[in-house]
Amino acid sequence: MGVGNRNRPLWGGRFGDDAGAASRDFTASIYFDRRLLGLDIRGSIAHANTLARAGIITLDEASQLVEGLREVEGDILEGRSELSTEFEDIHTNVEVLLAEKLGPLAARLHTGRSRNDQVATDMHLFVKEEIDEVFDLIDGLRRAILDRARDHVETLLPGYTHMQRAQPVSFAHHLLAYFFMLTRDRHRFSECGRRADVSPLGAAALAGSGFPLDREFAAAELGFSGVYENAMDAVSDRDFVLEYLSAASLTMMHLSRLAEELVLWSSSEFGFIRLSEGYSTGSSIMPQKRNPDSAELIRGKSGRVYGRLLGLLTTMKGLPLAYNSDMQEDKEALFDATDTLKACLKVAAGAVATMEVRGANMESATLGGFLGATDAADYLVSRGVPFREAHGIVGEIVAHCESVGLELSDLGPADWRGFSADFGDDIVELIHPEGSVRRRDLPGGTGPAAVGSQIRRAKELLDG
Amino acid sequence: MGVGNRNRPLWGGRFGDDAGAASRDFTASIYFDRRLLGLDIRGSIAHANTLARAGIITLDEASQLVEGLREVEGDILEGRSELSTEFEDIHTNVEVLLAEKLGPLAARLHTGRSRNDQVATDMHLFVKEEIDEVFDLIDGLRRAILDRARDHVETLLPGYTHMQRAQPVSFAHHLLAYFFMLTRDRHRFSECGRRADVSPLGAAALAGSGFPLDREFAAAELGFSGVYENAMDAVSDRDFVLEYLSAASLTMMHLSRLAEELVLWSSSEFGFIRLSEGYSTGSSIMPQKRNPDSAELIRGKSGRVYGRLLGLLTTMKGLPLAYNSDMQEDKEALFDATDTLKACLKVAAGAVATMEVRGANMESATLGGFLGATDAADYLVSRGVPFREAHGIVGEIVAHCESVGLELSDLGPADWRGFSADFGDDIVELIHPEGSVRRRDLPGGTGPAAVGSQIRRAKELLDG
Amino acid sequence: MGVGNRNRPLWGGRFGDDAGAASRDFTASIYFDRRLLGLDIRGSIAHANTLARAGIITLDEASQLVEGLREVEGDILEGRSELSTEFEDIHTNVEVLLAEKLGPLAARLHTGRSRNDQVATDMHLFVKEEIDEVFDLIDGLRRAILDRARDHVETLLPGYTHMQRAQPVSFAHHLLAYFFMLTRDRHRFSECGRRADVSPLGAAALAGSGFPLDREFAAAELGFSGVYENAMDAVSDRDFVLEYLSAASLTMMHLSRLAEELVLWSSSEFGFIRLSEGYSTGSSIMPQKRNPDSAELIRGKSGRVYGRLLGLLTTMKGLPLAYNSDMQEDKEALFDATDTLKACLKVAAGAVATMEVRGANMESATLGGFLGATDAADYLVSRGVPFREAHGIVGEIVAHCESVGLELSDLGPADWRGFSADFGDDIVELIHPEGSVRRRDLPGGTGPAAVGSQIRRAKELLDG
Amino acid sequence: MGVGNRNRPLWGGRFGDDAGAASRDFTASIYFDRRLLGLDIRGSIAHANTLARAGIITLDEASQLVEGLREVEGDILEGRSELSTEFEDIHTNVEVLLAEKLGPLAARLHTGRSRNDQVATDMHLFVKEEIDEVFDLIDGLRRAILDRARDHVETLLPGYTHMQRAQPVSFAHHLLAYFFMLTRDRHRFSECGRRADVSPLGAAALAGSGFPLDREFAAAELGFSGVYENAMDAVSDRDFVLEYLSAASLTMMHLSRLAEELVLWSSSEFGFIRLSEGYSTGSSIMPQKRNPDSAELIRGKSGRVYGRLLGLLTTMKGLPLAYNSDMQEDKEALFDATDTLKACLKVAAGAVATMEVRGANMESATLGGFLGATDAADYLVSRGVPFREAHGIVGEIVAHCESVGLELSDLGPADWRGFSADFGDDIVELIHPEGSVRRRDLPGGTGPAAVGSQIRRAKELLDG
Repeated sequence: MGVGNRNRPLWGGRFGDDAGAASRDFTASIYFDRRLLGLDIRGSIAHANTLARAGIITLDEASQLVEGLREVEGDILEGRSELSTEFEDIHTNVEVLLAEKLGPLAARLHTGRSRNDQVATDMHLFVKEEIDEVFDLIDGLRRAILDRARDHVETLLPGYTHMQRAQPVSFAHHLLAYFFMLTRDRHRFSECGRRADVSPLGAAALAGSGFPLDREFAAAELGFSGVYENAMDAVSDRDFVLEYLSAASLTMMHLSRLAEELVLWSSSEFGFIRLSEGYSTGSSIMPQKRNPDSAELIRGKSGRVYGRLLGLLTTMKGLPLAYNSDMQEDKEALFDATDTLKACLKVAAGAVATMEVRGANMESATLGGFLGATDAADYLVSRGVPFREAHGIVGEIVAHCESVGLELSDLGPADWRGFSADFGDDIVELIHPEGSVRRRDLPGGTGPAAVGSQIRRAKELLDG
Repeated sequence: MGVGNRNRPLWGGRFGDDAGAASRDFTASIYFDRRLLGLDIRGSIAHANTLARAGIITLDEASQLVEGLREVEGDILEGRSELSTEFEDIHTNVEVLLAEKLGPLAARLHTGRSRNDQVATDMHLFVKEEIDEVFDLIDGLRRAILDRARDHVETLLPGYTHMQRAQPVSFAHHLLAYFFMLTRDRHRFSECGRRADVSPLGAAALAGSGFPLDREFAAAELGFSGVYENAMDAVSDRDFVLEYLSAASLTMMHLSRLAEELVLWSSSEFGFIRLSEGYSTGSSIMPQKRNPDSAELIRGKSGRVYGRLLGLLTTMKGLPLAYNSDMQEDKEALFDATDTLKACLKVAAGAVATMEVRGANMESATLGGFLGATDAADYLVSRGVPFREAHGIVGEIVAHCESVGLELSDLGPADWRGFSADFGDDIVELIHPEGSVRRRDLPGGTGPAAVGSQIRRAKELLDG
Repeated sequence: MGVGNRNRPLWGGRFGDDAGAASRDFTASIYFDRRLLGLDIRGSIAHANTLARAGIITLDEASQLVEGLREVEGDILEGRSELSTEFEDIHTNVEVLLAEKLGPLAARLHTGRSRNDQVATDMHLFVKEEIDEVFDLIDGLRRAILDRARDHVETLLPGYTHMQRAQPVSFAHHLLAYFFMLTRDRHRFSECGRRADVSPLGAAALAGSGFPLDREFAAAELGFSGVYENAMDAVSDRDFVLEYLSAASLTMMHLSRLAEELVLWSSSEFGFIRLSEGYSTGSSIMPQKRNPDSAELIRGKSGRVYGRLLGLLTTMKGLPLAYNSDMQEDKEALFDATDTLKACLKVAAGAVATMEVRGANMESATLGGFLGATDAADYLVSRGVPFREAHGIVGEIVAHCESVGLELSDLGPADWRGFSADFGDDIVELIHPEGSVRRRDLPGGTGPAAVGSQIRRAKELLDG
Repeated sequence: MGVGNRNRPLWGGRFGDDAGAASRDFTASIYFDRRLLGLDIRGSIAHANTLARAGIITLDEASQLVEGLREVEGDILEGRSELSTEFEDIHTNVEVLLAEKLGPLAARLHTGRSRNDQVATDMHLFVKEEIDEVFDLIDGLRRAILDRARDHVETLLPGYTHMQRAQPVSFAHHLLAYFFMLTRDRHRFSECGRRADVSPLGAAALAGSGFPLDREFAAAELGFSGVYENAMDAVSDRDFVLEYLSAASLTMMHLSRLAEELVLWSSSEFGFIRLSEGYSTGSSIMPQKRNPDSAELIRGKSGRVYGRLLGLLTTMKGLPLAYNSDMQEDKEALFDATDTLKACLKVAAGAVATMEVRGANMESATLGGFLGATDAADYLVSRGVPFREAHGIVGEIVAHCESVGLELSDLGPADWRGFSADFGDDIVELIHPEGSVRRRDLPGGTGPAAVGSQIRRAKELLDG
């Protein structure tokens, strides 16, 4: 691996004698759009067939073009041809290589097409492919979560609000919250995918092709469900990229929350989990540490994806129709965001799947912090004490316990009754974490039956 | 109107003796969440009925609560009661006023509910209502665009790429691009609305209510189509707010592009339109100016809405489950963004509906700038000249014209043939803007029939 | 307090008959720029005096204008005059009221000035004033931090990396990190202030005033240190607002880190501090909780300020020179960000000043988690063992302790020597937290002498 | 050039069997931090010398380490050694190669140092170097602007507000606005550089090194002006990176405004300039076009740099002290932003230096659009007519001209006097663009003497 390639400033040299070269490097996109090679070839094949269908070229010419395009692709992929930075983008590189193969016929491929609709087509195909991959990776994480949830319906830990212990919950209940968050993410990507599923081909520069091309045919060749209604919109639109970045940002937000919890739970103070060795790292100076790097990086990378969304929104702000070169910025933004998202989803799945759950630590945490207080107040309410009054009584009990160093579980029936005659003997069991959880069996609740239903629902969603 | 109220620093006083007060003001949300009054009342009414249905309160108690809540709302709206900054939020204000009316019964309303699910419910209802309003406003702008497009199918102007004149297009074609962009925006809001359409009620703090409430019933009372599957998700989720902000950002991006064009077209240099007096302003020092302020402000406000999206994405980044006070920031972000969006949509519709279209200036612009060049190249291609070669020939013709100060329309058949024997006499008419446009009648093209189809399609979409 | 005023949609009514009104409301800034009243009056007084100095008006006319302006200000502040939304901004309101008082003379005030330089002047004065207030508030927080640090030089807690306990540190050392972060923030505001300290007056619309005004005199009247070198820059420049927002964003980032620690430290798991009642809130359903709301809100509000920075950067992107109405967006962005920042600084100071430090919990946390490991490795190194080898030996010791449930402090000299003959008896004391801290007395270290130096340096910086 | 390297997803494979590998790739930074090779070597050399100075290693050992480090650097740069992705970062790669050369002595280099202070040191050195390069590039652009301004003091064009022609200005005046904007940018980078100019070395993990290192000595070895006052701050601080990104964002905002003007001025409608061939591109389908791609890309890339700023601000939000792996995201953000900024500065300088200025088109634009209106109003004011009244009279004149199709320059003295008896014969010359410009010779104005002063001031600033 050479030094400095990947991040080298692309625009070498000094201004003056090499002005042209500096600017050519600056506007060139071959450094990153070569990733679109396969899709560009597919788009060109569809266009060749469309030209033949319209009688603009013969079927035989179309065959030659298709075969030539496939050879060009193979030559590049297998190293027989090199992409050259002398030509500004992947499209020109392919064009030049095709011309070397086919001579003048190669140029006929560009009849009735413009770079504007060609590039837009590639980007639509790319987004559709990425969404398919994201589906798999979201499902991988959902599956990992569901698998762990299944084993931990009965494992209790404190549920937190404001980072304060609030009420005991099932660890499965906690994990499943992420399952349903990711389910929404999947829906958003799916809708983005439907909007990306329209073909710009035939829009040409902005006015529609000067040749009577069958746009529906071209779309079908490429697996698109429809065509843009308006040629100017077709070449100006980058909504589908922004929408992808937006869906990715929300997903990363969810992952950052999960990652934050993994980091907190891995601390000595919580001690709820231990990431596996594959998903944590040692310290160079402190031999005893196991750092949850993978979770930290996922958390940190949310900012990166947000930045890509914001960056492209800013780039598109105030651009007059139709195509402007500013829009070339869509590619690196999208490539970086999608690679980041996919890596984070994969690593999150691995971390969740392989983490050690320290159930004993979780459960012992449910015994401190007066987690039964809400239940004690509810108990009084169900005996007819007004809620606010019940709240006051329980507040006193907690204050008493704090002052003498007791937990609620240390109180006997008589102690409870000292604060309110409405407490029966059953209060002792009721405020136990298991009692508290068991009472919350309404839909969506943390009780074992409710969590069982959630698990079945999650399985349906995953399999459906 | 008093000075400094709306933007006064909310947190008066000096740190020290009034520390508590400063902090109370800081955490209070009554300054802005009073806007949720009506929705909070609706949510509480639904909860009262749900408590009665579960037998936790009697039907008569429920009736008293419902009536009391309605009276509290009326009292505030009609000025008989005042909201007080002494109580931190709208919920506490309502609670206090209800207690004044009903005594201890009022407190029973809070049985089995937490602020967490209560606030989330209000926000869901709010987003649903706003989306309905946004639908109307997007449609208002779409209608204004469609109306103007109908009158300008035959009005030609240059289509631009890279801010350079590229090809003549119908002004209707250009306007309709925005129609279809806004159609996508409407779909995004619609999908956001569907995801907002689930009820958090019954989730309580995070574990599910300790009482066996019928969550589906409560949801139906409030017009929700379903309930959250997981209580922790229900109170932690602000996706629907972020998704609203994201849809609003894309819409604002579209409006900023339209606004940019309105500003450019209003300049002396373009002279394509003139905004009506209601949508422009004079200058204090330059009496001859008519500034397109409304369009400039729309363009500028895109940044503001982006900022709100980004701000809330950042706020939510890395928050552990379940509720954290950071999430209180969702309200002002949403309120500001939705007010801005709605105002921009309304003003954009007015500006488009009332602008003067200066068709003569548009059309004369299509005669300069060698707009027929593409068509001339296409002409050669259709005569069998390879595209790249045709491109070269036309390039020479343009260079020649530039050097001697002619436009393409100044050339006669013989001039054309001087460059290529493939040009026939018909080239002269073909490169005329009208000829160029008429040839582009494939679906989505700028030709009159294609634009007619676009208009019919747009009308269907608007009426559907 | 009325319902819905502060956040009401400013643009009422329906498009059509009230189109003009809707747009007028949309472009009006009187809703928020009234906050600039006092500064606008000051700017106008300086301009009146400058006109007199240039002989454009008489000294007597200048006196009348100055007196009239002061009266207008007094009338508004004391409620004798009302600002009207009929006039678009604060400048026009003042102008109208002045005309009511002085008749035609009032209009002469606008000789040789444009709204562009007038508004820019107000904004410069505003930023300068805000920075002075921010200085005081940053210093208030620095003082609170320094005061607490002074008392806790000897209080030890674990220092964390990756949320893992790493090494024992002095709590003063930890707090002082924030002191020095805030010192950098203060420097950034100071530099922003210097760049804001130039007067745009005399730039007029963009070409410079058509009257030979003494710009240096006007600048001096307003307390500016200099004037803009170029009139077009003077009216187009909003760098000073963006730079303020950028400095505010970095400060908020620092406050968000402090807030995160306050939240973590307030949890049952850490138990390191307890926020005072004035800076925390109870829960409506869980009587035992004390939520660190003020810290959570500070953390959350970082997103809001970032959003304002980003929003204005986007608004300014791609704006041609000179003034465009888009730039009107600078005001609400700045007002909201500065109010938010100042409130957060004040509340952070109060929270830090009044929090209870639970030193015993901190210190007991330093005894777990093998914090002495680094020191043990350093010990071996100082005895000539290569660092990587020392690291390996200590890793084994830690693994041994973990497997048998011991802490490093449970080991006796013989135990240590069982792993390496290089350990002397002094290892036992050396790995004790106090020993570890005491060894780190190089500049910037956590040792007591080094922390003492930091405190003295901090005091100098604060007093200087 | 191979396909897909630069943007290939870094994390290949499927989750499961290769979990560890996937995560290792995910957390590795060697893909981008190899760019720090030279700086890391310099930092290690300084540390070796510091260890010797403290007597922790001998002078001879230090010499061996220094020589070994230099050889490792040479080996990598000259291709004798390869960096391996097997080791996570550049630091580990260097360490491994050094160990191959020196055996156990290599490991002693890590005595008293942590990755935390090592990485922070590299980043400080990097930012300082980049700022030096940015200085040169900003100065290159300032020089290009100044050179063009010198030639165009007498070239007039319309100054615009709201994209409306407002007043005639000197093209030099317009260009110089950018000169002074860039001067502020330079100051901001300079201040950022001063804050980056402190050494973190010796801070170790967060508590300060366990060895009595001379931190001032190490700092001086590396050319730093000082050391961090607090070790925890030293390893947690990324302000200097954020401040660099913020200064870069403001500079990009300025460049985006310049770029927007270059694009507009290149249009047929304005026709004010023509970018040289080196800085524009042809169209694949429209042979006559010369697209201002380089300017468009500069404009578009502002979003990218904003996104990096925002991304890192978000990443740092809410991070507890001290080091967290999230902070690893600082590198790619900084590398991408600084490469983008430098390329844009260089290209902007080239575009400005080589553009063709079409003075005749500029000047003819100053004759339309009633640009003399302000001057006519000022004329009346100087004759004692109140400004608002003068404004009204001139408004009438403009309205009259518009209705009959005249420009102000078409009016004779009698025509003027028909509207106000206060007009003398001299009004005809006075409202001519040259007259208007000549009258604006106050400091910062567009008059020739004032612009001459600006040019001298600019030259001083550039040479100073």
